[in-house]
Amino acid sequence: MKIAILGGTGSIGEGFALRWATKHDILLCSRSADRAAISAEEYTGMVLSKGLACCGITGCTNEAGIRDADVIVLSVPYEGVVPLLERLGPYFKDQIVISLVVPMKKNKFFEYTPPEQGSAALEIRDILPKSVKVVSAYHNISAKKLANLDLVLDYDVVICGDDGDAKKIVMELTEEIKNLRPLDGGDLGCSYMIESLTPFLINLAIRNRLSDLGVKFT
Amino acid sequence: MKIAILGGTGSIGEGFALRWATKHDILLCSRSADRAAISAEEYTGMVLSKGLACCGITGCTNEAGIRDADVIVLSVPYEGVVPLLERLGPYFKDQIVISLVVPMKKNKFFEYTPPEQGSAALEIRDILPKSVKVVSAYHNISAKKLANLDLVLDYDVVICGDDGDAKKIVMELTEEIKNLRPLDGGDLGCSYMIESLTPFLINLAIRNRLSDLGVKFT
Repeated sequence: MKIAILGGTGSIGEGFALRWATKHDILLCSRSADRAAISAEEYTGMVLSKGLACCGITGCTNEAGIRDADVIVLSVPYEGVVPLLERLGPYFKDQIVISLVVPMKKNKFFEYTPPEQGSAALEIRDILPKSVKVVSAYHNISAKKLANLDLVLDYDVVICGDDGDAKKIVMELTEEIKNLRPLDGGDLGCSYMIESLTPFLINLAIRNRLSDLGVKFT
Repeated sequence: MKIAILGGTGSIGEGFALRWATKHDILLCSRSADRAAISAEEYTGMVLSKGLACCGITGCTNEAGIRDADVIVLSVPYEGVVPLLERLGPYFKDQIVISLVVPMKKNKFFEYTPPEQGSAALEIRDILPKSVKVVSAYHNISAKKLANLDLVLDYDVVICGDDGDAKKIVMELTEEIKNLRPLDGGDLGCSYMIESLTPFLINLAIRNRLSDLGVKFT
């Protein structure tokens, strides 16, 4: 499967590239193809140094990545996602788009600030062509832990989406990351609940002197 | 410490009575003192049968329980809580009130339906005398698991409240239940987040064929 990672050169994008490169072709996307190529080489080295197989991590522009991918991971900050997707709209066809986007603002603590649609996932769905299948997932996975290939991630991933087949593919991708358990969180309208967990978890971490919190439902 | 449990004869109230009776005086409250006395005797037997100490579980009316207690556990359904507390208002002084109350409605799935104050905890605070210290906690603990004294509950309890001392006491009460970890969830204004987790957890359980889900942040 070809997986494009928008925001692939930073933060959580790195972790997905490293984790999925053993089974999938990763298109690491950035505004700058050069910057993407540098990160792609670096990530490839990290995977190979662990003695793991690497199907290939290729750096490319956002446009090329979106055009060629089956699955597009949207690991970019909420600020700027609307103009970015409006600009890149013509390159989308019927791919699966996984939104990790969380609209939030920081005062002393973090606050969930959904757009009028109710969640970032619904807003993103409204921007993209109707043939694109938006799935909401991975908001509450620590970027640091995901990028550490020595760590087993004993967490739950709640997945929301309107397209059953797309949701199933994202569930399978989740199971490929050791010990992550995918859970069906309902349709895309339920995404506000998993998005709003992110500022909640960050606040919990700050208040209780913890860090990189994930969540497990048992 | 004297702990009154409103809604003590049903559901989650039973679990708290059983768990805390080993160290505290439990006032099991009901509209009917007779019914409360029957449950109190039953629960006392359950604690003693496990070879545990039992400080005393006494059945009483809501009025008597509230008047005599240091801590009042509000384990009653949202429907009816407003008229109940308005009626019982004169019996409150400066106790700690722990709200487990979650306003939600069920269609196919459950939906969080907070009052205009933003959460049940804030609405309850507005009804009770200002000297009462409302703390919001235990919304996401399974009644069935809590009442099973053989079970170690490996869960997190997020606690919200405006009064630091009251929150500390509820944190200590939480730690007395083996493996429950209290986490500071912020002031009472943050309670909507932990209240809304309850319908979310119930929906997750329904959709994924799980049951009695609790939550752990790691």
